[in-house]
Amino acid sequence: MAPLYPFSAIVGQSEMLLGLTVASVDPSVGGVLIFGERGTGKSTAIRALAHLLPTMKVVDGCRFNCDPAKPADLCGHACGKQGGRPKTGEIPIPVVDLPLGATEDRVVGALDLEVALSRGEKRFEPGLLARAHRGFLYIDEVNLLEDHLVDLLLDVAASGENVVEREGLSVRHPARFVLVGSGNPEEGELRPQLLDRFGLSVEVTTPKDLKDRVEVVRRREAFERDRDGFVAAWTGKEAAIRRKIVRARRLLSQIEMPDGVVQRAAEICLALGTDGLRGELILIRAARAVAALEGAKVASVDHLRRVAPMTLRHRLRRDPLDDVGASVRVERVLDECYAA
Amino acid sequence: MAPLYPFSAIVGQSEMLLGLTVASVDPSVGGVLIFGERGTGKSTAIRALAHLLPTMKVVDGCRFNCDPAKPADLCGHACGKQGGRPKTGEIPIPVVDLPLGATEDRVVGALDLEVALSRGEKRFEPGLLARAHRGFLYIDEVNLLEDHLVDLLLDVAASGENVVEREGLSVRHPARFVLVGSGNPEEGELRPQLLDRFGLSVEVTTPKDLKDRVEVVRRREAFERDRDGFVAAWTGKEAAIRRKIVRARRLLSQIEMPDGVVQRAAEICLALGTDGLRGELILIRAARAVAALEGAKVASVDHLRRVAPMTLRHRLRRDPLDDVGASVRVERVLDECYAA
Amino acid sequence: MAPLYPFSAIVGQSEMLLGLTVASVDPSVGGVLIFGERGTGKSTAIRALAHLLPTMKVVDGCRFNCDPAKPADLCGHACGKQGGRPKTGEIPIPVVDLPLGATEDRVVGALDLEVALSRGEKRFEPGLLARAHRGFLYIDEVNLLEDHLVDLLLDVAASGENVVEREGLSVRHPARFVLVGSGNPEEGELRPQLLDRFGLSVEVTTPKDLKDRVEVVRRREAFERDRDGFVAAWTGKEAAIRRKIVRARRLLSQIEMPDGVVQRAAEICLALGTDGLRGELILIRAARAVAALEGAKVASVDHLRRVAPMTLRHRLRRDPLDDVGASVRVERVLDECYAA
Amino acid sequence: MAPLYPFSAIVGQSEMLLGLTVASVDPSVGGVLIFGERGTGKSTAIRALAHLLPTMKVVDGCRFNCDPAKPADLCGHACGKQGGRPKTGEIPIPVVDLPLGATEDRVVGALDLEVALSRGEKRFEPGLLARAHRGFLYIDEVNLLEDHLVDLLLDVAASGENVVEREGLSVRHPARFVLVGSGNPEEGELRPQLLDRFGLSVEVTTPKDLKDRVEVVRRREAFERDRDGFVAAWTGKEAAIRRKIVRARRLLSQIEMPDGVVQRAAEICLALGTDGLRGELILIRAARAVAALEGAKVASVDHLRRVAPMTLRHRLRRDPLDDVGASVRVERVLDECYAA
Amino acid sequence: MAPLYPFSAIVGQSEMLLGLTVASVDPSVGGVLIFGERGTGKSTAIRALAHLLPTMKVVDGCRFNCDPAKPADLCGHACGKQGGRPKTGEIPIPVVDLPLGATEDRVVGALDLEVALSRGEKRFEPGLLARAHRGFLYIDEVNLLEDHLVDLLLDVAASGENVVEREGLSVRHPARFVLVGSGNPEEGELRPQLLDRFGLSVEVTTPKDLKDRVEVVRRREAFERDRDGFVAAWTGKEAAIRRKIVRARRLLSQIEMPDGVVQRAAEICLALGTDGLRGELILIRAARAVAALEGAKVASVDHLRRVAPMTLRHRLRRDPLDDVGASVRVERVLDECYAA
Amino acid sequence: MAPLYPFSAIVGQSEMLLGLTVASVDPSVGGVLIFGERGTGKSTAIRALAHLLPTMKVVDGCRFNCDPAKPADLCGHACGKQGGRPKTGEIPIPVVDLPLGATEDRVVGALDLEVALSRGEKRFEPGLLARAHRGFLYIDEVNLLEDHLVDLLLDVAASGENVVEREGLSVRHPARFVLVGSGNPEEGELRPQLLDRFGLSVEVTTPKDLKDRVEVVRRREAFERDRDGFVAAWTGKEAAIRRKIVRARRLLSQIEMPDGVVQRAAEICLALGTDGLRGELILIRAARAVAALEGAKVASVDHLRRVAPMTLRHRLRRDPLDDVGASVRVERVLDECYAA
Repeated sequence: MAPLYPFSAIVGQSEMLLGLTVASVDPSVGGVLIFGERGTGKSTAIRALAHLLPTMKVVDGCRFNCDPAKPADLCGHACGKQGGRPKTGEIPIPVVDLPLGATEDRVVGALDLEVALSRGEKRFEPGLLARAHRGFLYIDEVNLLEDHLVDLLLDVAASGENVVEREGLSVRHPARFVLVGSGNPEEGELRPQLLDRFGLSVEVTTPKDLKDRVEVVRRREAFERDRDGFVAAWTGKEAAIRRKIVRARRLLSQIEMPDGVVQRAAEICLALGTDGLRGELILIRAARAVAALEGAKVASVDHLRRVAPMTLRHRLRRDPLDDVGASVRVERVLDECYAA
Repeated sequence: MAPLYPFSAIVGQSEMLLGLTVASVDPSVGGVLIFGERGTGKSTAIRALAHLLPTMKVVDGCRFNCDPAKPADLCGHACGKQGGRPKTGEIPIPVVDLPLGATEDRVVGALDLEVALSRGEKRFEPGLLARAHRGFLYIDEVNLLEDHLVDLLLDVAASGENVVEREGLSVRHPARFVLVGSGNPEEGELRPQLLDRFGLSVEVTTPKDLKDRVEVVRRREAFERDRDGFVAAWTGKEAAIRRKIVRARRLLSQIEMPDGVVQRAAEICLALGTDGLRGELILIRAARAVAALEGAKVASVDHLRRVAPMTLRHRLRRDPLDDVGASVRVERVLDECYAA
Repeated sequence: MAPLYPFSAIVGQSEMLLGLTVASVDPSVGGVLIFGERGTGKSTAIRALAHLLPTMKVVDGCRFNCDPAKPADLCGHACGKQGGRPKTGEIPIPVVDLPLGATEDRVVGALDLEVALSRGEKRFEPGLLARAHRGFLYIDEVNLLEDHLVDLLLDVAASGENVVEREGLSVRHPARFVLVGSGNPEEGELRPQLLDRFGLSVEVTTPKDLKDRVEVVRRREAFERDRDGFVAAWTGKEAAIRRKIVRARRLLSQIEMPDGVVQRAAEICLALGTDGLRGELILIRAARAVAALEGAKVASVDHLRRVAPMTLRHRLRRDPLDDVGASVRVERVLDECYAA
Repeated sequence: MAPLYPFSAIVGQSEMLLGLTVASVDPSVGGVLIFGERGTGKSTAIRALAHLLPTMKVVDGCRFNCDPAKPADLCGHACGKQGGRPKTGEIPIPVVDLPLGATEDRVVGALDLEVALSRGEKRFEPGLLARAHRGFLYIDEVNLLEDHLVDLLLDVAASGENVVEREGLSVRHPARFVLVGSGNPEEGELRPQLLDRFGLSVEVTTPKDLKDRVEVVRRREAFERDRDGFVAAWTGKEAAIRRKIVRARRLLSQIEMPDGVVQRAAEICLALGTDGLRGELILIRAARAVAALEGAKVASVDHLRRVAPMTLRHRLRRDPLDDVGASVRVERVLDECYAA
Repeated sequence: MAPLYPFSAIVGQSEMLLGLTVASVDPSVGGVLIFGERGTGKSTAIRALAHLLPTMKVVDGCRFNCDPAKPADLCGHACGKQGGRPKTGEIPIPVVDLPLGATEDRVVGALDLEVALSRGEKRFEPGLLARAHRGFLYIDEVNLLEDHLVDLLLDVAASGENVVEREGLSVRHPARFVLVGSGNPEEGELRPQLLDRFGLSVEVTTPKDLKDRVEVVRRREAFERDRDGFVAAWTGKEAAIRRKIVRARRLLSQIEMPDGVVQRAAEICLALGTDGLRGELILIRAARAVAALEGAKVASVDHLRRVAPMTLRHRLRRDPLDDVGASVRVERVLDECYAA
Repeated sequence: MAPLYPFSAIVGQSEMLLGLTVASVDPSVGGVLIFGERGTGKSTAIRALAHLLPTMKVVDGCRFNCDPAKPADLCGHACGKQGGRPKTGEIPIPVVDLPLGATEDRVVGALDLEVALSRGEKRFEPGLLARAHRGFLYIDEVNLLEDHLVDLLLDVAASGENVVEREGLSVRHPARFVLVGSGNPEEGELRPQLLDRFGLSVEVTTPKDLKDRVEVVRRREAFERDRDGFVAAWTGKEAAIRRKIVRARRLLSQIEMPDGVVQRAAEICLALGTDGLRGELILIRAARAVAALEGAKVASVDHLRRVAPMTLRHRLRRDPLDDVGASVRVERVLDECYAA
């Protein structure tokens, strides 16, 4: 395929870039929901991320991207049945595109008809969920996807497993991925219940500054005129970000999480009245990822504050007596908690 | 599969834990409906229960989990046709997951297409209902399941038999299981008629206590960091609960049920105006299970009281002149009955 | 299958028991509709009836339950084509369960795909309607069944024939059965037109008497504890009812029906303003069945009165100026007719 | 099949009996719509008619009931291709039942799958429309039939031809039959446009006379008790009606139709404001059939009057300022026309 | 098939007859929409036209009715691939019936399953559109046809080509035909957008004159009594009309169209405010056809006036301030333009 | 196929002609939406364009129209796997018609059933999207197309890739084309979100000038009378336009785009408040294309102004306080920006 626009050449949109980077460092923060008007480069960003990410180790030839470092977690198909240590391969972290019009059988996997018809065997043909394991699954215009597919995707994203019970098949395999959805809130709201399932939500907007707008157009035109040259010019910046992510992934499990930070997270969530405890859990993880990205050894309440808006904004109940936007309400509570 | 969060490490949520334990001791109390906000650990609890439960004896190789101790109840497929005593195997009590997107043929069973196409025979391929026999069938987000599937499941759960009349097949086999449904009432109400079909209903809520919230986050993070270590640390508590359940199952049929307790159960139901007699029947059974769990020999009105809310709360008619919540109304009636 | 709760051990619910017994004596009274709240034992009663009923003679091996005593009525498949007198077998009166989720092809019968694919022949595979011939067809929650299936069932029940025109098949075979439907009026009303098609309608209610309730719970618990023992204890009572039904069937055609009774039936229906003449016809038949059950030789206006409510209650037009319940209106008219 | 209730033993309902008889004499009057409350014997009457009708000559073995007397009209399948004069057989005038649940392929005919699969040939398998050719097609509860099937039937009934364009087949064959529909206006109105397509419409009602009601019940019970005996007792009356119909069919083409009668028919329709000229055309034909039934040589305005209500009642536009029933309006106009 | 009622024997309805004749002379005027009440002989007229029309020359054996006189326009299947001059055959101008219930595959054509299954080849089997090429396609009750079929038909009628992209087929062939639709405006309106696509629209009404009505009935009855005799009696009149059409077709391309007539057409359309220029184009063509029918050499404004109502009536925007009927508005504008 | 009406012979409609020409010069401006009343020649124009366009080079035999000049961009099917330099062919720039009734499998491509059935192989059969690569895809009446197809088309048009995940296939290939949609706003609005996806939108209207109307009719009639002659007469004008487009394509990448022009574009978009930055990007590209068409070396603010209305008109938010039409608002802002 032709070269893609580089991640590091994106003008502005710092919240979206941070959200995607955090999810790259710690996939367990859950999905990222990017929303904003059309034409603000949402698709460009996620496609650019695919190029930026490092590689990962897999069991060689495994159709489920099994991690050779986690024997307990092997898919149980080819991998689990091999004796001895599995052979290891290396592939780019997958960023799988879920196109509009994808059928459920391709998403969750299905009976392999070719094998069924030619050899009379029932064999499972993995779907997009298997291919996205340990990587990203991207849905452009998540609000146009049929509800039952969205439910299904979020269900798998939450449990980390794809359980298939259809067409006489009964299969389960690990499917842990970061779900990235982009959407334009004007084209149809997401159900409140789904919002909560995304770990992070980031907003992108059309820049209001003339200089930024001219810069976007200039870079875009430069890219269109000479894709190879443009990409070459940004190679260094791309590599820098990649190194930062790789280092943060390695550091992540060593970051200390002081009790005061956990308590602050709980205080913020209590003050905002978010349902359940998912708010706290994601907040802690995202703060730790930011600490890792910055090379810090201990997570701090400042790390927490940086990710609080994107972690909590979409978990608020609508308060009919307080109709200021969710972002404003989060900021207000943060101000109070941090003032104290 | 990777280790699961232990049942005994769940913070708070005592009503949910009691409900699941009671149903484990006496499956004839009927299904358990867990409802509450997202992120309160409903799925975690049921998946944890699967690990906690003891094993059970089955006819070796039977695809319907037949109980070798009940010859009259054999499935009539392979089991019933064998001469002599069937060979016995031992399997974990099944906790079967009904994924969203499961098709009716996989739930109730269907024609085995592989056999049909290759050998031209009509053979029944058991579905999830057969696999869940004598165990649990879990439906996350039961309110998102299509009505016709829910009707079907409750119908089988009530009769203890799966009767299949489709695709030229005419099959019946025992299918007794505890249906566990979880749901968020904000994502769509359950029809009142379905509520009544669940034996027990338990509520889970987000803890409002800061210390509890911090504790949840800490345990969860500890688990995520080192799953094996965490699980090992809770092995003892898990075994204790398992032993309690095994003992209670054995004792169950010997618990005495004094007339006064039966009468009190009927009085409570009369006072609440519940439809039919299912209220009384479940109340008696749940009280007996609690007695067995406590090692008591005689069931008492105190045992009754402990399970009355989860047994009756969802069986109340909506009274337009009395709009206090169902839980409050049950408590009020209990107070009166027990004051007398 | 495990032992069932005995018909004779049911507490109260005398109207339902009478209705089912009458239909067992004279199936031509048409179907029985049982309606009432959940948990009042509707399903228990019909399943218990299946055990109670005597056997019947059939043409040996006939898949349509043909009656060897009625040569004119043979199914015309295997039976009608055999020369000489058909061999006779004996089977329990069928009580066929129509499960939710049954497909139309299994209800009316369909092309036998196994035979079609393997031998290239079009053979009709009988459905539930054939299996229920000369017995009972039971639909739990008849109000949840799809309209087109209900229409179809009532159509066949009315004509006594199953006419199949589908998938290139053109088949007709006798299908006379008592349709028993149970339903909860709160879960969706039956269309008025369907109500009229049921011969009898009986109401079941939750007992309001504390002693009855306690007795129900006690018997049920005793049954659950020791099914075999409980059933054994009621064997005698079961046999007594069975003998009564067998005798009544034999006597039925000899019961005299005085003109005064026919006239009284017509007077009652005229006074109630029921549509058509089905009211009278069923009333006469039900009264004759009661007479037969009591061993009377002549039907009387008292027999008529006993069955009038269950025969007529569901045939009343809704009168906007007179909003008392149907049962009350029937009683009022009966009082007038009998006072005269 | 078991004996049917005789046509001549029907009590009252003279309009329905006349309508069916007229359509038997001259099928070109178009279909008969019988409407009235349930339980008034609509189905009984049409099934009885099937037994009463004489036989007809067909080309031997023709699956389309071709008339050997009309060589121009042969079906063009087997019949039209044979050289010489076709062999002639004799069959009862068909009264074909269109069961609820009939699929479109069985109604219009379809690809014969057995032949297609075994021999790889496309052969047309005639449907109910072919089987009903030159006879009757009966739809009980025509208002429950799906609209697209009704449209299709009326279309064929109007054109006298069945044109099939489906599944790669392109077939046309004659299909002239009397469509008899019965329905209960309370179960769903017929669309005004469909009403107009039926040639005749007759009303049946529950007798309001006590003696008639008792007589109906008595005859019905007598029939149920001894079907063979009852049928034997009415053989003579049946034969008399059959003879009358046969004679009328023969005489039909010789009945003179004076100009005054045609003019009177047009006057009545003008006065009633019926759309189109179908009213006049059917009126003339029905009057001629009545004349033939009575053995008259010349049709008269009295014959016209006898059939005017059943011919015109359902062709009236609803007049919002004149809300008396259609029957009353027809009578009023008839009184005026005949007074003049 | 049996003889049809002759075109020339139709009483009155001169506008419908002119419209059909004009479209027969110049098919490029586009379809004819006939609307009016039921029973006014719409179907009779179009079926009669089929008999009246002359024959046309086709490439022998071509399944697409290719015109041997237009080599550039051959279908490209068999015809286009033959070397040399194609053999010529002669067939009646097709009047193809689109029956209700026709499936899309039969309308546009589809994969020939017989060939596909037996020989494993993908071959296109032409549909009704191919069969109607260079003739007429008749849809009775066009307002009952499904929208997607109507869109499809009008699309093909407009472009003169049938483009098929389905089932792995990718075919295009010429399909130029006059679409004739009949409908009853009371049975469902045509969408305004579809109205505009029909070239001509004609209204038929029930005659209000007693003598006409009697004459219709008389002729119809005479026809029914002796079809062959009746048809024979009208042979001469039929031939006269046919000759007139044949001559007009030949003359058509030689008719002179003075600038004044084109300008008058534009003026009328401007005054009526019709959208687009289809109004003018059709008006000119229809006027030329009328001139040809009358044997004139030059088209005149009088010819224009004669066809203006049927050409423009259905192209008017609904004017909320001027609620007189479309016909009246056309006449008013015509009066003004011609007065000038 | 028969000759088409020449592009250069279209009377008036200069905006539509400019829009189509600009998109022919630089396909990256995105689709063209043509809207206006019926009968204004929308379809004629796009079909005429197909004839006018020059040829393009493709990899010989590639079913995906791969460009031999862009090795990085080869389809990866046949093309990418060949060693050495691919053979080159030359084909007309494709203008692919998407007919109403096209099925999704034909649009995106699908499993080749012929190959699957005969050889048991899964092979992808390219659809219309592949065929339109590097050309035009035309949808007449885009507002009648099903939403899911429109979404799919716009999605592919935006990404330039067709990603297929269905029926066990997993294919991606380049699919860059200009989507041309025509529609009548009165037949159903386009969703605002879709409007924005079209690069350009042009309006066509019925000429209100009598002379123009007469000229249209005259040319059209002349064409209909003698297609070959008419086309011959316009050959020179057609060639001139083609040469202009070819030259502009060659010049395009050399046109200088001064900073002032980019800044003016951003100012206009800021003033109009268009969402995202697509407005600026398209504006710049369209201005460059106009410059190239005129043979200019440097793009100017005048070029910008010429294309601003068709680029921005459909990107405006509806402003409830300012209900003048979009075109008027664009003009007003342009006047201000250019006055400054």
